[in-house]
Amino acid sequence: MSEYWSPKPLYRSVVLILDGLGDRPVPELGGRTPLQVARKPTLDSLAAEGVTGIMDVIEPGVRPGTDTGHMALFGYDPYRFYPGRGPLEAAGIGVELKPGDVALRANFATVREEGGRLIVVDRRAGRIRGEDAEALTRYLNERIGSVDDVRVSFHHATAHRLVVVLRGDSLSPRVSDSDPGTAREGEPVREVKPLTNDPESERTARILWKLLLRAHEELERCPVNEERVKRGLLPANAVLTRGAGMVPYGIVPFREQFGATAYLVAEEATVLGVARILGIEGEIPGGSTADLDTDLDAIFNRALDAYRRGYEFVFIHVKGTDIAGHDAKPLEKARFIERVDEAFAGFLSRIDRGKTIVAVTADHSTPCTVRDHSGDPVPLLINGPGVRRDDVTSFDEISCARGGLGRIRGVNLVRILLDLMNKPIMFGE
Amino acid sequence: MSEYWSPKPLYRSVVLILDGLGDRPVPELGGRTPLQVARKPTLDSLAAEGVTGIMDVIEPGVRPGTDTGHMALFGYDPYRFYPGRGPLEAAGIGVELKPGDVALRANFATVREEGGRLIVVDRRAGRIRGEDAEALTRYLNERIGSVDDVRVSFHHATAHRLVVVLRGDSLSPRVSDSDPGTAREGEPVREVKPLTNDPESERTARILWKLLLRAHEELERCPVNEERVKRGLLPANAVLTRGAGMVPYGIVPFREQFGATAYLVAEEATVLGVARILGIEGEIPGGSTADLDTDLDAIFNRALDAYRRGYEFVFIHVKGTDIAGHDAKPLEKARFIERVDEAFAGFLSRIDRGKTIVAVTADHSTPCTVRDHSGDPVPLLINGPGVRRDDVTSFDEISCARGGLGRIRGVNLVRILLDLMNKPIMFGE
Repeated sequence: MSEYWSPKPLYRSVVLILDGLGDRPVPELGGRTPLQVARKPTLDSLAAEGVTGIMDVIEPGVRPGTDTGHMALFGYDPYRFYPGRGPLEAAGIGVELKPGDVALRANFATVREEGGRLIVVDRRAGRIRGEDAEALTRYLNERIGSVDDVRVSFHHATAHRLVVVLRGDSLSPRVSDSDPGTAREGEPVREVKPLTNDPESERTARILWKLLLRAHEELERCPVNEERVKRGLLPANAVLTRGAGMVPYGIVPFREQFGATAYLVAEEATVLGVARILGIEGEIPGGSTADLDTDLDAIFNRALDAYRRGYEFVFIHVKGTDIAGHDAKPLEKARFIERVDEAFAGFLSRIDRGKTIVAVTADHSTPCTVRDHSGDPVPLLINGPGVRRDDVTSFDEISCARGGLGRIRGVNLVRILLDLMNKPIMFGE
Repeated sequence: MSEYWSPKPLYRSVVLILDGLGDRPVPELGGRTPLQVARKPTLDSLAAEGVTGIMDVIEPGVRPGTDTGHMALFGYDPYRFYPGRGPLEAAGIGVELKPGDVALRANFATVREEGGRLIVVDRRAGRIRGEDAEALTRYLNERIGSVDDVRVSFHHATAHRLVVVLRGDSLSPRVSDSDPGTAREGEPVREVKPLTNDPESERTARILWKLLLRAHEELERCPVNEERVKRGLLPANAVLTRGAGMVPYGIVPFREQFGATAYLVAEEATVLGVARILGIEGEIPGGSTADLDTDLDAIFNRALDAYRRGYEFVFIHVKGTDIAGHDAKPLEKARFIERVDEAFAGFLSRIDRGKTIVAVTADHSTPCTVRDHSGDPVPLLINGPGVRRDDVTSFDEISCARGGLGRIRGVNLVRILLDLMNKPIMFGE
């Protein structure tokens, strides 16, 4: 009896996620998709020796974001667990959040008072430099620790960007933006209002607005701003907020939820933020540009390192496909897929294929003809020991629709992989 | 106009469930599955003249038990209605349960007192015989009718096994096992604790522990045990419990839920227990061994009898395929499928095919390479008057994935059959 016959051999999974990979027929490619046009022997042979399908990352017709798409690919239903942009931005810059915390994206801005209202002069305070923004953030945290019974904190991200966190009982993420939006200089700062008429939303809007007025007062007399004015720069005398979100209760970290360890090599802070909220470790590798010129070898080397450190799931996120879709560059998209195919071949030659389930898919489609995300299903292949083999021999949107996996949802993927790893989620005896 | 054209001819359904039928590619079968290898002209011609698909009995990647799998196949969502092991064991031995009843699996065991604790000497009371266990069960029921305001009852199953039922208001199934588990002789009996901190769980744990201490006292002075000790046998002086479950509220019996009568011929008490909880009648036929040597003719004869008695659904459960999977015997699995194919042909020749929808599927996969249940989807065929025909000509895991049914869920099956029987569940006008 070979080792194969011992009960339940345990395997690992490598999941390659090509951001925005899915596409639609492109007229200038003769009605084919970039994935159909690309020369990709590695992906095609994985498809030929494995099983394929198409996948609605969220649900049919619904356009995923990179954030909600990845949340689903990590096995968590985004309808239940998506926290909104504020908490993701916070997690992306390493802010520790607890369930019930409300986090908001924010800008340092320049405002002037006029008739008792605050008018936006510059939404980014004259593109304030990181050092000044950092100092102003410290100043705010020193001067304002709480509003009423709610603890508040400010966290600098990059340039004019920061994150505001509210921590306390009975908060709500359903509050409006105070930021009037891009290209809205000359308009007043918008008073924060509850978006629904429950007591939590009313309380949160009141407290947040009080906080923003207080921040304006403090920033007006901050020495950093006096110095900026002396240097002929716009003072960063207000904080504009948007994208309020709450970390939901009930997220069980990946390792406890699925009984397996996971590591993510990603090209974007957003993807890393989603992972962190779910308890998945990860990194953005040096050399990554999140664009078509990214260093794919650097990315796959970091993935190989995680694989060798023994993680049971290694997720690899590559961004260029999405960029090419947004930029309506179908040939560049195809060429980039070819580069990924080659680099992935090198990675595969260095892992133990006999003990590894390999999946290749996308977080959403970014068709070149749309120049944006779309709700078209994405192709999926799964290859590895024990995987049922279908007769599809090409990895693309059209061929995979005939595959043995049929049409599944993004949230199914991790569960299917766990099953093939012989660590299934069990229900019943 | 022939009879065929009269409005809504009403049909019946026969559902053949081959336990653990689904498999993965098996190296010693040249990468094919036992179902692909088996010579099965009956199943193949049913597939060729019908429609096929693959089915996630619970959801993609999730490993069904025989119990949860059958619950889904009977049309009930196990996430909503699965009662846990205790009530299934109770239903399997014919105990009548009501919603809100808590039932537990239990063992007669031998314990000794040491420092105020009860230490397990033998978890099965020296493999006590059925007659003694029966007598001890009667004794307990005579001596203990209730604890506080909760009615309690003991029900002998087989050998050392029994079922304990608690009936009263505000009970909870979320209580821990008092049984320390297999191979844990020498360890203390575990005090029953609430698994969640609600009043119902705390109350149930307190009452159950009081009951188990009381049962120990009663069994210590029971004449049956005095007699056993005289005969040099271990006294069965304790009851160890595990697998608490509650019959959920809101189960509408099959006939009312679906407007159709149903009968089950099964090889296992567990399957029969699931059926009973759902109001489906059934039997384990004489001659059934729940193994590869079972008397298939006896099984199909009982199914034929149910069909002739006019049941609208006849479910037939055959176990051998699962046994072969657990034992990693792919050739035996294929041979057993061949035997089923032949016996089923005889059954089909004796029913009115023109008025019967025939379905063949499984409750889960039991791949020979895994030696356990897995979450791989199972193949499904549906054949009969009015059924759309696809171009799949072989009934196996790979071919059916290309079939006209696509990829469905276990809970869909009964509804699809009802629709083909022209008794659909209607929603809207």
